[in-house]
Amino acid sequence: MIVVMQPEASEAQIQSVIDHLVNLGFDIHRSTGVERTVLGCVGATANIDVRDVEVLEGVAEAHRISSPYKLAGRSFRPEGTIIKAGPLTIGGDEIPIIAGPCSIESREQLFAVAEQVAAAGARGLRGGAFKPRSSPYSFQGMGEEGLKLLREACDHYEMAAVSEVMSETQIPLMLQYVDILQVGARNMQNFNLLRELGKIRKPILLKRGIAATIEELLLSAEYIMAGGNYEVILCERGIRTFETYTRNTLDLSAIPVVHKLSHLPIIADPSHGTGRRDKVPPMARAAVAAGGDGVIMEVHCNPEKALSDGAQSLYPQQFTKLMEELRLIATAVNKRVAPARAFAAQQR
Amino acid sequence: MIVVMQPEASEAQIQSVIDHLVNLGFDIHRSTGVERTVLGCVGATANIDVRDVEVLEGVAEAHRISSPYKLAGRSFRPEGTIIKAGPLTIGGDEIPIIAGPCSIESREQLFAVAEQVAAAGARGLRGGAFKPRSSPYSFQGMGEEGLKLLREACDHYEMAAVSEVMSETQIPLMLQYVDILQVGARNMQNFNLLRELGKIRKPILLKRGIAATIEELLLSAEYIMAGGNYEVILCERGIRTFETYTRNTLDLSAIPVVHKLSHLPIIADPSHGTGRRDKVPPMARAAVAAGGDGVIMEVHCNPEKALSDGAQSLYPQQFTKLMEELRLIATAVNKRVAPARAFAAQQR
Amino acid sequence: MIVVMQPEASEAQIQSVIDHLVNLGFDIHRSTGVERTVLGCVGATANIDVRDVEVLEGVAEAHRISSPYKLAGRSFRPEGTIIKAGPLTIGGDEIPIIAGPCSIESREQLFAVAEQVAAAGARGLRGGAFKPRSSPYSFQGMGEEGLKLLREACDHYEMAAVSEVMSETQIPLMLQYVDILQVGARNMQNFNLLRELGKIRKPILLKRGIAATIEELLLSAEYIMAGGNYEVILCERGIRTFETYTRNTLDLSAIPVVHKLSHLPIIADPSHGTGRRDKVPPMARAAVAAGGDGVIMEVHCNPEKALSDGAQSLYPQQFTKLMEELRLIATAVNKRVAPARAFAAQQR
Amino acid sequence: MIVVMQPEASEAQIQSVIDHLVNLGFDIHRSTGVERTVLGCVGATANIDVRDVEVLEGVAEAHRISSPYKLAGRSFRPEGTIIKAGPLTIGGDEIPIIAGPCSIESREQLFAVAEQVAAAGARGLRGGAFKPRSSPYSFQGMGEEGLKLLREACDHYEMAAVSEVMSETQIPLMLQYVDILQVGARNMQNFNLLRELGKIRKPILLKRGIAATIEELLLSAEYIMAGGNYEVILCERGIRTFETYTRNTLDLSAIPVVHKLSHLPIIADPSHGTGRRDKVPPMARAAVAAGGDGVIMEVHCNPEKALSDGAQSLYPQQFTKLMEELRLIATAVNKRVAPARAFAAQQR
Repeated sequence: MIVVMQPEASEAQIQSVIDHLVNLGFDIHRSTGVERTVLGCVGATANIDVRDVEVLEGVAEAHRISSPYKLAGRSFRPEGTIIKAGPLTIGGDEIPIIAGPCSIESREQLFAVAEQVAAAGARGLRGGAFKPRSSPYSFQGMGEEGLKLLREACDHYEMAAVSEVMSETQIPLMLQYVDILQVGARNMQNFNLLRELGKIRKPILLKRGIAATIEELLLSAEYIMAGGNYEVILCERGIRTFETYTRNTLDLSAIPVVHKLSHLPIIADPSHGTGRRDKVPPMARAAVAAGGDGVIMEVHCNPEKALSDGAQSLYPQQFTKLMEELRLIATAVNKRVAPARAFAAQQR
Repeated sequence: MIVVMQPEASEAQIQSVIDHLVNLGFDIHRSTGVERTVLGCVGATANIDVRDVEVLEGVAEAHRISSPYKLAGRSFRPEGTIIKAGPLTIGGDEIPIIAGPCSIESREQLFAVAEQVAAAGARGLRGGAFKPRSSPYSFQGMGEEGLKLLREACDHYEMAAVSEVMSETQIPLMLQYVDILQVGARNMQNFNLLRELGKIRKPILLKRGIAATIEELLLSAEYIMAGGNYEVILCERGIRTFETYTRNTLDLSAIPVVHKLSHLPIIADPSHGTGRRDKVPPMARAAVAAGGDGVIMEVHCNPEKALSDGAQSLYPQQFTKLMEELRLIATAVNKRVAPARAFAAQQR
Repeated sequence: MIVVMQPEASEAQIQSVIDHLVNLGFDIHRSTGVERTVLGCVGATANIDVRDVEVLEGVAEAHRISSPYKLAGRSFRPEGTIIKAGPLTIGGDEIPIIAGPCSIESREQLFAVAEQVAAAGARGLRGGAFKPRSSPYSFQGMGEEGLKLLREACDHYEMAAVSEVMSETQIPLMLQYVDILQVGARNMQNFNLLRELGKIRKPILLKRGIAATIEELLLSAEYIMAGGNYEVILCERGIRTFETYTRNTLDLSAIPVVHKLSHLPIIADPSHGTGRRDKVPPMARAAVAAGGDGVIMEVHCNPEKALSDGAQSLYPQQFTKLMEELRLIATAVNKRVAPARAFAAQQR
Repeated sequence: MIVVMQPEASEAQIQSVIDHLVNLGFDIHRSTGVERTVLGCVGATANIDVRDVEVLEGVAEAHRISSPYKLAGRSFRPEGTIIKAGPLTIGGDEIPIIAGPCSIESREQLFAVAEQVAAAGARGLRGGAFKPRSSPYSFQGMGEEGLKLLREACDHYEMAAVSEVMSETQIPLMLQYVDILQVGARNMQNFNLLRELGKIRKPILLKRGIAATIEELLLSAEYIMAGGNYEVILCERGIRTFETYTRNTLDLSAIPVVHKLSHLPIIADPSHGTGRRDKVPPMARAAVAAGGDGVIMEVHCNPEKALSDGAQSLYPQQFTKLMEELRLIATAVNKRVAPARAFAAQQR
């Protein structure tokens, strides 16, 4: 930590601050400049709230200089992290695409879309089983029944199963059926949930909160990793800004920023990031071009009848065309997207 | 809902949209203008996602015109809602002040600050018992032991007990000890928690999320009220903006806005809203001047040693002085703040 | 400036950064910690772009530690700045209220409102003469004719004349008629304009841009002061956030923040800050309660017919009532608002 | 415009609102629902401030339904606009890349970088001649001398000359030397400047303000077009959000949004959008993948010595490599980027 004193700070104030910092366990290096005094504090600062130092008499500013995350930091694993979940590998040369409906609504609905996205080359199948909604009268999800269907569809079409865990009490249930446990944007700082997810050994897909900085996203990853679960996939899904034309503002610059700061893979969710079907293909292409390690998207065979998020769900044919574009773009960044698969084409 | 067609929409597109809306149960009023056609849709729109209509062919825009909240809306109870919780009344002529430490740390700590704030005129005592922190190594709260101390202090000093409930599983425990259950900003859209809080019959203090609009805050209140619990106190505690000098930007204009839109009382939390002790008194005064129905603040007898949020906790003497200022300001808005109490003055 | 090296930075990289900084004229203090090396750089950093250092090989972060403004900083004049403009004094014990129409529309319109606000105790009269509007067909302002009317009304009712200067070419004209030259939010970083305003010797009312941080506001004040004009009044008038119910979010915490960082007075503009008439009185009261050095508001005798900004203009009787409330609130912060004046009461 | 009355609005209030609207020249269609009354207002609403209607007694909300821009709207020219400027065409199948230094510093500097970017396939050369800076002591630009150099370099290397116009007084000078006049983000709502640019017949590159919505960007384009100059190129260059790791948040979703709303071409500026050199290539690739009609970037042969914006300027070899990637990506969206040119390769 660096503590910058006010130009008018008295010697007594400076000594008092130094004493305070020594009590906290720091070694202090004092630099006296023409204009002001600066204190360099060496020691463990991860748990220090710099505001506690800034409110001391005579202090102008305090800056933390060691990054507050260690395990999530790039220097912990400079070569990058590769995570495997069923038939899906992320962080390597292949960019996995994860697709599927917002909610699992029925066997017919799920298998229909699963076949289409599998045929188009998707490596993961997404689908929500628990849907606590803003209206208490809306569809609340199929629960465990939905998870069973997801598992079955993934086994049949050889995809990884991805579904959102809403609270720590659901973890044991989730572990039976899914390959990747998704943490939604609203739960990014639900520390009880993060702590429990640190104890399991399955990959976590951690979505950025709509008001969370990239540093806070990495701190939440650190929270999971501190428990011993190092398989965290980050996900940019849009932040809230003054622009209201789109549901959120998809911050694709988070991709190169995370690649610099962390070894963890980062994917993008253009469905939630834009909220409108016609904006999803352009932003999915942009995510791959920006170096994203994957893309997750909502696809529905009949979006007009979807029980949730129909407006942002792609039609299967849109998804298939988009996959072809993504394959071309991936080559420009020395990566690849899995090819279309023949089995489904035959069945159709 | 009002649906505005694109200028170039064909008659077939217009008919198709009308058919779709009729299927959803709307009565349609069609207005054909020189430039474009507008469809007025009468019927229950609360559960309609306007985006589902906006993605139809030929549609330019769709607007919901009935407000999505009913129970929380001003017209449900035009005279305003008054809520009683122990010795505290909110929404009437008296503006209750709620004060206390961020976390309950010990009997000594809690009773020391309780006596001071009670003497100064506070009607409620706040204190956190569960503190899931960003670092897994930080103090995590005293749990039920803390709640017992809070109850005891409130009984002794005649104040209402206010504490945060972190998940639905804690509700039964909370009900034994506290008078007002606080929902933190991160849980404002935790719908499982809100649903359960709708079933109880104690007042809820609902904090605005840092990325939540005022409408979303009212929707969360509606969620609780839909369960039958009409005693919801709203709380402005700062939103996240590009300004980083303060921890958040306290949006005091939410006070007159809520007073226009809703019958529910709204208070302000300048401690979390600014994050710095020296900014708390000015913003507490401003909250009362803006017409706020109450103020909640952090006070600690020894903020330098506080286990959490010390930087934003007032010293007791600051709080006492502030209370005198608030009494003066309250008169300007035809309200009052409770007087200082003699008992504690004697004890000191 | 403090330069923090990456943990893995090589000795060669560190030496290269030191050489670079020495070339820029800094004295370097090197601290070698267990985890990383920190370089303290002493010297004139005001013109350094810290990003230029952050992109050097091996550098993790760079922080500027001397504040980039000197003349505007609190330590330049710890006792605070008091500015006089005609019958108005700002920064002292009296809180001046400035009121008047958005645009000067006619002699009748201006004198009618001037009499009312003067009678209610306003010390300054505002009115725009140049109104470049978003529509080229809208009213563009009365120009010099309007300024003459403003001067005449101010002389007659003993108020200071406040009007906006849109470009450096208008300065000579403005100097003939107004007491305080206002810089609008859109021009806060129009450096050509600021430079010319630094050369004159009349007070400047500098409005914060809707996307400007408090530091950037102070930097713009510094720009004017660097030219020799030290009489700068800052004005908070709302920032753009995700909340759209209000036109902008009035950031009243800017008042205590500016009082800590700077010696310059700061006022609030709740008319532009909220955009709605009914939100103006609560936020004006809040501004005084927060310690603001003044308030500027739009008042119009017939807002429904106003040529601009009618929706946010107070009726005179609202303004008169508000002034009484502000007088009460001012006492709570040991200040005062000028009393109502009899002359106009007689005339009416 | 659609006016929604409050549920409790009286018949007298409704009539009064109708009378007011009829006076403004609207035809009114009244719909009386079970819950509330809605008024459809047909007529010219472009110049109406909906807030003026919203503050009327009994009104709950008012929505403008015809878009406030006409000339910039998609329906004005559904096939899209193609603009030619010297050897550069924008809006068609080729995606022009514009590159060059932030400021023109000298003949050597400009020609060195011009040759490199021309060889790599750039169609336009950018360079600032006027640089009003936040510090009055910083480099202020070469002025007309710089523009002459820019013209000369563009003639020699067959590129279009792009430079920023800071005020209406500079337009005649600019017209002598440049092919595309750039309007900077701070001037996006400088209506005096926009009005004068509407009178000329050269393409305008209009940058989005950091706090401007996409609708406001289109309104500024409309302002220019209303004067008769239809050749407006829009530019996304980052908006200000709570995320501070990047200088701004580049909102690439503006590209598909503008393509839906308007016929005007839109390009991206990843240099200003991210503020850091290493973030520029990923975001430039993303801009092309998202369907952008062009990219503008800062390139400097010696960024460490650049007089401005060195931290965000690419090295020429980075730019050359990036151009190859952009060529691959362009094919995925059925566009192309101009090939590398041999002449410069020979000269080097």
